[in-house]
Amino acid sequence: MADLFIALIHHPVLNRNGRIVTSAITSLDLHDIARSSRAYGVRAFFVVHPIAEQREFAAAVIGHWMAGYGRAFDHRRREALELVRIVSSLDEALADAQSISGARPIVIHTSARTSAGTGYDELRLRLAAPDAPPAMILLGTGFGLAPEVAARADIELTAIQGTSDYNHLSVRAAASIILDRLRGR
Amino acid sequence: MADLFIALIHHPVLNRNGRIVTSAITSLDLHDIARSSRAYGVRAFFVVHPIAEQREFAAAVIGHWMAGYGRAFDHRRREALELVRIVSSLDEALADAQSISGARPIVIHTSARTSAGTGYDELRLRLAAPDAPPAMILLGTGFGLAPEVAARADIELTAIQGTSDYNHLSVRAAASIILDRLRGR
Repeated sequence: MADLFIALIHHPVLNRNGRIVTSAITSLDLHDIARSSRAYGVRAFFVVHPIAEQREFAAAVIGHWMAGYGRAFDHRRREALELVRIVSSLDEALADAQSISGARPIVIHTSARTSAGTGYDELRLRLAAPDAPPAMILLGTGFGLAPEVAARADIELTAIQGTSDYNHLSVRAAASIILDRLRGR
Repeated sequence: MADLFIALIHHPVLNRNGRIVTSAITSLDLHDIARSSRAYGVRAFFVVHPIAEQREFAAAVIGHWMAGYGRAFDHRRREALELVRIVSSLDEALADAQSISGARPIVIHTSARTSAGTGYDELRLRLAAPDAPPAMILLGTGFGLAPEVAARADIELTAIQGTSDYNHLSVRAAASIILDRLRGR
Protein backbone atom coordinates (compact mmCIF):
# COMPACT_ATOMS: atom_id res chain seq x y z
CA MET A 1 0.00 0.00 0.00
CA ALA A 2 1.28 3.45 -0.93
CA ASP A 3 2.55 5.86 1.71
CA LEU A 4 0.02 8.68 1.79
CA PHE A 5 0.79 12.33 2.56
CA ILE A 6 -1.41 15.40 2.85
CA ALA A 7 -0.35 18.97 2.09
CA LEU A 8 -2.59 21.82 3.19
CA ILE A 9 -1.74 24.75 0.92
CA HIS A 10 -2.13 28.41 2.01
CA HIS A 11 -0.48 29.94 -1.07
CA PRO A 12 -1.27 30.22 -3.93
CA VAL A 13 -4.99 29.88 -3.28
CA LEU A 14 -8.04 31.78 -4.50
CA ASN A 15 -10.21 34.18 -2.54
CA ARG A 16 -13.96 34.54 -3.05
CA ASN A 17 -13.36 36.82 -6.02
CA GLY A 18 -11.02 34.41 -7.78
CA ARG A 19 -7.88 36.41 -6.95
CA ILE A 20 -4.68 34.66 -5.90
CA VAL A 21 -4.01 35.24 -2.21
CA THR A 22 -2.22 33.80 0.82
CA SER A 23 -4.64 32.49 3.45
CA ALA A 24 -4.10 32.34 7.20
CA ILE A 25 -3.42 29.13 9.09
CA THR A 26 -6.26 28.19 11.43
CA SER A 27 -5.67 26.01 14.46
CA LEU A 28 -8.82 24.04 13.75
CA ASP A 29 -7.56 22.94 10.34
CA LEU A 30 -4.45 21.60 12.07
CA HIS A 31 -6.41 19.67 14.69
CA ASP A 32 -9.15 18.28 12.47
CA ILE A 33 -7.00 17.25 9.53
CA ALA A 34 -4.32 15.82 11.83
CA ARG A 35 -6.96 13.68 13.57
CA SER A 36 -8.38 12.45 10.25
CA SER A 37 -4.84 11.81 9.00
CA ARG A 38 -4.04 9.75 12.08
CA ALA A 39 -7.23 7.69 11.72
CA TYR A 40 -6.53 6.90 8.07
CA GLY A 41 -2.84 6.09 8.30
CA VAL A 42 -1.39 9.21 6.64
CA ARG A 43 2.42 9.25 7.04
CA ALA A 44 2.77 13.03 7.42
CA PHE A 45 0.48 16.07 7.19
CA PHE A 46 2.31 19.06 5.71
CA VAL A 47 1.10 22.55 6.56
CA VAL A 48 2.49 24.71 3.76
CA HIS A 49 2.84 28.46 4.33
CA PRO A 50 5.36 30.90 2.80
CA ILE A 51 5.29 33.38 5.70
CA ALA A 52 7.55 32.67 8.68
CA GLU A 53 5.23 34.25 11.28
CA GLN A 54 2.40 31.97 10.15
CA ARG A 55 4.62 28.93 10.42
CA GLU A 56 5.63 30.04 13.91
CA PHE A 57 1.96 30.34 14.85
CA ALA A 58 1.32 26.78 13.70
CA ALA A 59 4.38 25.56 15.60
CA ALA A 60 3.08 27.26 18.76
CA VAL A 61 -0.34 25.61 18.45
CA ILE A 62 1.28 22.22 18.04
CA GLY A 63 3.86 22.83 20.75
CA HIS A 64 1.10 23.47 23.28
CA TRP A 65 -0.17 19.90 22.84
CA MET A 66 3.23 18.26 22.48
CA ALA A 67 4.80 19.38 25.76
CA GLY A 68 3.97 20.07 29.38
CA TYR A 69 0.37 20.59 30.37
CA GLY A 70 -1.18 20.01 26.96
CA ARG A 71 0.73 16.78 26.49
CA ALA A 72 -0.49 15.41 29.81
CA PHE A 73 -4.03 16.72 29.30
CA ASP A 74 -4.83 14.94 26.04
CA HIS A 75 -2.62 12.29 24.49
CA ARG A 76 -5.04 11.85 21.57
CA ARG A 77 -4.28 15.34 20.29
CA ARG A 78 -0.57 14.72 20.58
CA GLU A 79 -0.83 11.45 18.68
CA ALA A 80 -2.53 13.31 15.83
CA LEU A 81 -0.39 16.46 15.87
CA GLU A 82 2.81 14.40 15.77
CA LEU A 83 2.00 13.93 12.07
CA VAL A 84 2.19 17.67 11.31
CA ARG A 85 5.22 19.10 9.50
CA ILE A 86 5.31 22.83 8.92
CA VAL A 87 7.05 23.81 5.67
CA SER A 88 7.37 26.89 3.49
CA SER A 89 6.61 25.41 0.07
CA LEU A 90 5.24 22.45 -1.81
CA ASP A 91 8.78 21.66 -2.98
CA GLU A 92 9.92 21.40 0.62
CA ALA A 93 6.98 19.10 1.42
CA LEU A 94 7.80 16.88 -1.54
CA ALA A 95 11.49 16.68 -0.61
CA ASP A 96 10.58 15.87 2.99
CA ALA A 97 8.12 13.17 1.91
CA GLN A 98 10.75 11.71 -0.39
CA SER A 99 13.18 11.49 2.52
CA ILE A 100 10.55 9.57 4.50
CA SER A 101 9.39 7.19 1.75
CA GLY A 102 12.48 6.89 -0.42
CA ALA A 103 10.68 7.97 -3.59
CA ARG A 104 9.17 11.20 -4.84
CA PRO A 105 5.38 11.16 -4.25
CA ILE A 106 2.92 11.43 -7.07
CA VAL A 107 0.99 14.68 -6.59
CA ILE A 108 -2.78 14.56 -6.36
CA HIS A 109 -4.71 17.78 -6.96
CA THR A 110 -8.14 18.27 -5.39
CA SER A 111 -10.77 20.87 -6.20
CA ALA A 112 -14.51 21.29 -5.78
CA ARG A 113 -14.51 22.35 -9.44
CA THR A 114 -12.93 19.29 -11.12
CA SER A 115 -15.73 17.58 -13.01
CA ALA A 116 -13.96 14.90 -15.06
CA GLY A 117 -10.83 13.97 -13.17
CA THR A 118 -9.61 10.65 -11.82
CA GLY A 119 -12.28 8.84 -9.80
CA TYR A 120 -11.95 7.70 -6.19
CA ASP A 121 -12.30 3.97 -6.86
CA GLU A 122 -9.60 4.11 -9.53
CA LEU A 123 -7.18 6.03 -7.32
CA ARG A 124 -7.95 3.79 -4.33
CA LEU A 125 -6.93 0.74 -6.40
CA ARG A 126 -3.77 2.42 -7.62
CA LEU A 127 -2.73 3.37 -4.09
CA ALA A 128 -3.43 -0.14 -2.80
CA ALA A 129 -1.10 -1.82 -5.30
CA PRO A 130 1.92 -3.53 -3.67
CA ASP A 131 4.38 -1.48 -5.71
CA ALA A 132 2.48 1.81 -5.58
CA PRO A 133 4.68 4.92 -5.23
CA PRO A 134 3.97 7.32 -2.35
CA ALA A 135 1.26 9.91 -3.00
CA MET A 136 0.62 13.44 -1.72
CA ILE A 137 -2.88 14.88 -1.66
CA LEU A 138 -2.97 18.68 -2.07
CA LEU A 139 -5.78 20.49 -0.25
CA GLY A 140 -6.52 24.15 -0.89
CA THR A 141 -7.61 26.63 1.78
CA GLY A 142 -9.61 29.80 1.06
CA PHE A 143 -11.67 29.18 -2.08
CA GLY A 144 -9.37 26.49 -3.37
CA LEU A 145 -6.00 25.92 -5.02
CA ALA A 146 -4.88 28.46 -7.62
CA PRO A 147 -4.89 27.12 -11.20
CA GLU A 148 -1.08 27.12 -11.35
CA VAL A 149 -1.00 24.40 -8.66
CA ALA A 150 -2.83 22.00 -10.97
CA ALA A 151 0.12 22.20 -13.36
CA ARG A 152 2.29 20.62 -10.64
CA ALA A 153 -0.04 17.63 -10.22
CA ASP A 154 0.16 14.15 -11.72
CA ILE A 155 -3.48 13.40 -10.98
CA GLU A 156 -6.54 15.62 -10.72
CA LEU A 157 -9.09 14.03 -8.43
CA THR A 158 -12.75 14.48 -9.32
CA ALA A 159 -14.68 16.79 -6.99
CA ILE A 160 -16.66 15.25 -4.14
CA GLN A 161 -20.28 14.98 -5.17
CA GLY A 162 -23.03 15.03 -2.61
CA THR A 163 -26.66 14.87 -3.64
CA SER A 164 -27.03 18.53 -4.55
CA ASP A 165 -25.07 21.01 -6.65
CA TYR A 166 -23.81 22.70 -3.47
CA ASN A 167 -20.05 22.12 -3.46
CA HIS A 168 -18.84 24.29 -0.60
CA LEU A 169 -17.66 21.73 1.91
CA SER A 170 -15.12 22.92 4.45
CA VAL A 171 -11.55 21.79 3.75
CA ARG A 172 -11.79 19.82 7.02
CA ALA A 173 -14.84 17.92 5.77
CA ALA A 174 -13.38 17.44 2.29
CA ALA A 175 -10.13 16.05 3.71
CA SER A 176 -11.98 13.49 5.81
CA ILE A 177 -14.23 12.37 2.96
CA ILE A 178 -11.29 12.02 0.56
CA LEU A 179 -9.34 9.92 3.09
CA ASP A 180 -12.38 7.75 3.76
CA ARG A 181 -12.98 7.17 0.06
CA LEU A 182 -9.33 6.32 -0.58
CA ARG A 183 -8.57 4.35 2.58
CA GLY A 184 -11.72 3.72 4.67
CA ARG A 185 -13.05 0.23 5.36
CA MET B 1 -35.46 8.29 -0.68
CA ALA B 2 -35.83 8.98 3.03
CA ASP B 3 -35.79 12.52 4.38
CA LEU B 4 -32.56 12.79 6.36
CA PHE B 5 -32.07 14.93 9.48
CA ILE B 6 -29.05 15.56 11.68
CA ALA B 7 -29.15 16.38 15.40
CA LEU B 8 -25.98 17.65 17.09
CA ILE B 9 -26.37 16.85 20.78
CA HIS B 10 -24.72 18.94 23.53
CA HIS B 11 -26.42 17.17 26.46
CA PRO B 12 -26.17 14.46 27.69
CA VAL B 13 -22.65 13.85 26.39
CA LEU B 14 -19.48 12.49 27.97
CA ASN B 15 -16.37 14.40 28.91
CA ARG B 16 -12.84 12.97 28.71
CA ASN B 17 -13.33 11.26 32.06
CA GLY B 18 -16.58 9.56 31.06
CA ARG B 19 -18.77 11.88 33.15
CA ILE B 20 -22.06 13.18 31.77
CA VAL B 21 -21.79 16.89 30.95
CA THR B 22 -23.28 19.64 28.82
CA SER B 23 -20.89 20.85 26.12
CA ALA B 24 -20.69 24.32 24.61
CA ILE B 25 -21.90 25.14 21.11
CA THR B 26 -19.05 26.10 18.77
CA SER B 27 -19.64 28.26 15.72
CA LEU B 28 -17.43 26.03 13.62
CA ASP B 29 -19.59 22.97 14.24
CA LEU B 30 -22.56 24.98 12.98
CA HIS B 31 -20.78 26.11 9.81
CA ASP B 32 -19.05 22.86 8.91
CA ILE B 33 -21.94 20.51 9.59
CA ALA B 34 -24.42 22.87 7.91
CA ARG B 35 -22.24 22.94 4.79
CA SER B 36 -21.93 19.15 4.72
CA SER B 37 -25.68 18.85 5.34
CA ARG B 38 -26.42 21.17 2.44
CA ALA B 39 -24.11 19.22 0.10
CA TYR B 40 -25.73 15.89 0.98
CA GLY B 41 -29.37 16.91 0.88
CA VAL B 42 -30.13 16.89 4.62
CA ARG B 43 -33.60 18.39 5.26
CA ALA B 44 -32.74 20.08 8.56
CA PHE B 45 -29.76 20.22 10.93
CA PHE B 46 -30.88 20.43 14.56
CA VAL B 47 -28.57 22.01 17.11
CA VAL B 48 -29.77 20.63 20.43
CA HIS B 49 -28.89 22.50 23.64
CA PRO B 50 -30.82 22.67 26.93
CA ILE B 51 -29.46 26.09 27.98
CA ALA B 52 -31.20 29.19 26.60
CA GLU B 53 -28.05 31.37 26.52
CA GLN B 54 -26.30 28.77 24.38
CA ARG B 55 -29.22 28.64 21.98
CA GLU B 56 -29.13 32.44 21.79
CA PHE B 57 -25.42 32.29 20.94
CA ALA B 58 -26.11 29.88 18.10
CA ALA B 59 -28.95 32.07 16.86
CA ALA B 60 -26.63 35.09 16.86
CA VAL B 61 -23.97 33.26 14.81
CA ILE B 62 -26.55 32.24 12.28
CA GLY B 63 -28.24 35.63 12.27
CA HIS B 64 -24.98 37.28 11.28
CA TRP B 65 -24.91 35.33 8.01
CA MET B 66 -28.65 35.47 7.34
CA ALA B 67 -29.13 39.24 7.36
CA GLY B 68 -27.42 42.49 6.40
CA TYR B 69 -23.71 42.47 5.73
CA GLY B 70 -23.13 38.74 6.28
CA ARG B 71 -25.96 37.82 3.93
CA ALA B 72 -24.55 39.99 1.15
CA PHE B 73 -20.96 38.92 1.81
CA ASP B 74 -21.38 35.17 1.37
CA HIS B 75 -24.56 33.54 0.05
CA ARG B 76 -22.98 30.08 0.34
CA ARG B 77 -22.92 30.31 4.12
CA ARG B 78 -26.53 31.47 4.18
CA GLU B 79 -27.61 28.57 1.97
CA ALA B 80 -26.04 26.15 4.43
CA LEU B 81 -27.11 27.87 7.65
CA GLU B 82 -30.73 28.03 6.48
CA LEU B 83 -30.84 24.33 7.36
CA VAL B 84 -30.07 24.95 11.04
CA ARG B 85 -32.84 24.69 13.66
CA ILE B 86 -31.95 25.44 17.25
CA VAL B 87 -33.93 23.39 19.76
CA SER B 88 -33.75 22.56 23.46
CA SER B 89 -34.15 18.77 23.34
CA LEU B 90 -34.11 15.70 21.16
CA ASP B 91 -37.89 15.43 21.62
CA GLU B 92 -38.31 18.91 20.18
CA ALA B 93 -36.08 17.99 17.23
CA LEU B 94 -38.09 14.82 16.57
CA ALA B 95 -41.41 16.68 16.74
CA ASP B 96 -40.09 19.37 14.42
CA ALA B 97 -38.80 16.77 11.94
CA GLN B 98 -42.15 15.00 12.07
CA SER B 99 -43.91 18.24 11.19
CA ILE B 100 -41.61 18.60 8.16
CA SER B 101 -41.78 15.01 6.90
CA GLY B 102 -45.20 13.87 8.10
CA ALA B 103 -43.82 10.87 9.98
CA ARG B 104 -41.67 10.39 13.07
CA PRO B 105 -38.05 9.78 12.05
CA ILE B 106 -36.22 6.62 12.94
CA VAL B 107 -33.38 7.57 15.28
CA ILE B 108 -29.83 6.63 14.33
CA HIS B 109 -27.21 6.60 17.08
CA THR B 110 -23.53 7.17 16.20
CA SER B 111 -20.47 6.54 18.34
CA ALA B 112 -16.76 5.93 17.82
CA ARG B 113 -17.17 3.01 20.22
CA THR B 114 -19.89 0.96 18.45
CA SER B 115 -18.15 -2.12 17.12
CA ALA B 116 -21.00 -4.34 15.89
CA GLY B 117 -23.83 -2.04 14.92
CA THR B 118 -25.68 -1.57 11.65
CA GLY B 119 -23.32 -1.15 8.71
CA TYR B 120 -23.24 1.78 6.31
CA ASP B 121 -24.14 -0.17 3.17
CA GLU B 122 -27.15 -1.71 4.89
CA LEU B 123 -28.42 1.63 6.20
CA ARG B 124 -27.76 3.32 2.86
CA LEU B 125 -30.02 0.77 1.13
CA ARG B 126 -32.73 1.16 3.77
CA LEU B 127 -32.71 4.94 3.41
CA ALA B 128 -32.84 4.72 -0.38
CA ALA B 129 -36.01 2.60 -0.45
CA PRO B 130 -39.01 4.38 -2.02
CA ASP B 131 -41.13 3.99 1.12
CA ALA B 132 -38.34 4.63 3.65
CA PRO B 133 -39.41 6.62 6.72
CA PRO B 134 -37.48 9.80 7.58
CA ALA B 135 -34.32 9.28 9.61
CA MET B 136 -32.44 11.41 12.14
CA ILE B 137 -28.71 10.92 12.73
CA LEU B 138 -27.60 11.79 16.28
CA LEU B 139 -24.08 13.20 16.62
CA GLY B 140 -22.44 13.63 20.00
CA THR B 141 -20.15 16.53 20.95
CA GLY B 142 -17.51 16.34 23.68
CA PHE B 143 -16.38 12.74 23.97
CA GLY B 144 -19.58 11.33 22.51
CA LEU B 145 -23.22 10.67 23.33
CA ALA B 146 -24.04 9.52 26.87
CA PRO B 147 -25.13 5.86 27.10
CA GLU B 148 -28.73 6.84 27.90
CA VAL B 149 -29.07 8.37 24.41
CA ALA B 150 -28.51 4.97 22.81
CA ALA B 151 -31.69 3.75 24.54
CA ARG B 152 -33.65 6.30 22.47
CA ALA B 153 -32.26 4.99 19.15
CA ASP B 154 -33.77 2.55 16.67
CA ILE B 155 -30.43 1.89 14.99
CA GLU B 156 -26.86 1.96 16.27
CA LEU B 157 -24.49 2.74 13.44
CA THR B 158 -21.10 1.02 13.47
CA ALA B 159 -18.17 3.31 14.23
CA ILE B 160 -16.20 4.77 11.33
CA GLN B 161 -13.09 2.69 10.76
CA GLY B 162 -10.02 4.21 9.24
CA THR B 163 -6.87 2.16 8.80
CA SER B 164 -5.62 2.45 12.37
CA ASP B 165 -7.14 1.96 15.82
CA TYR B 166 -7.19 5.75 16.32
CA ASN B 167 -10.87 6.67 16.54
CA HIS B 168 -10.80 10.32 17.58
CA LEU B 169 -12.17 12.05 14.52
CA SER B 170 -13.69 15.48 15.08
CA VAL B 171 -17.50 15.51 15.06
CA ARG B 172 -17.22 17.71 11.95
CA ALA B 173 -15.16 15.06 10.13
CA ALA B 174 -17.36 12.20 11.37
CA ALA B 175 -20.53 13.98 10.20
CA SER B 176 -19.13 14.46 6.71
CA ILE B 177 -17.92 10.87 6.39
CA ILE B 178 -21.25 9.48 7.62
CA LEU B 179 -23.18 11.61 5.13
CA ASP B 180 -20.86 10.60 2.31
CA ARG B 181 -21.19 6.91 3.14
CA LEU B 182 -24.99 7.13 3.35
CA ARG B 183 -25.64 9.52 0.49
CA GLY B 184 -22.50 10.25 -1.56
CA ARG B 185 -22.14 9.31 -5.21
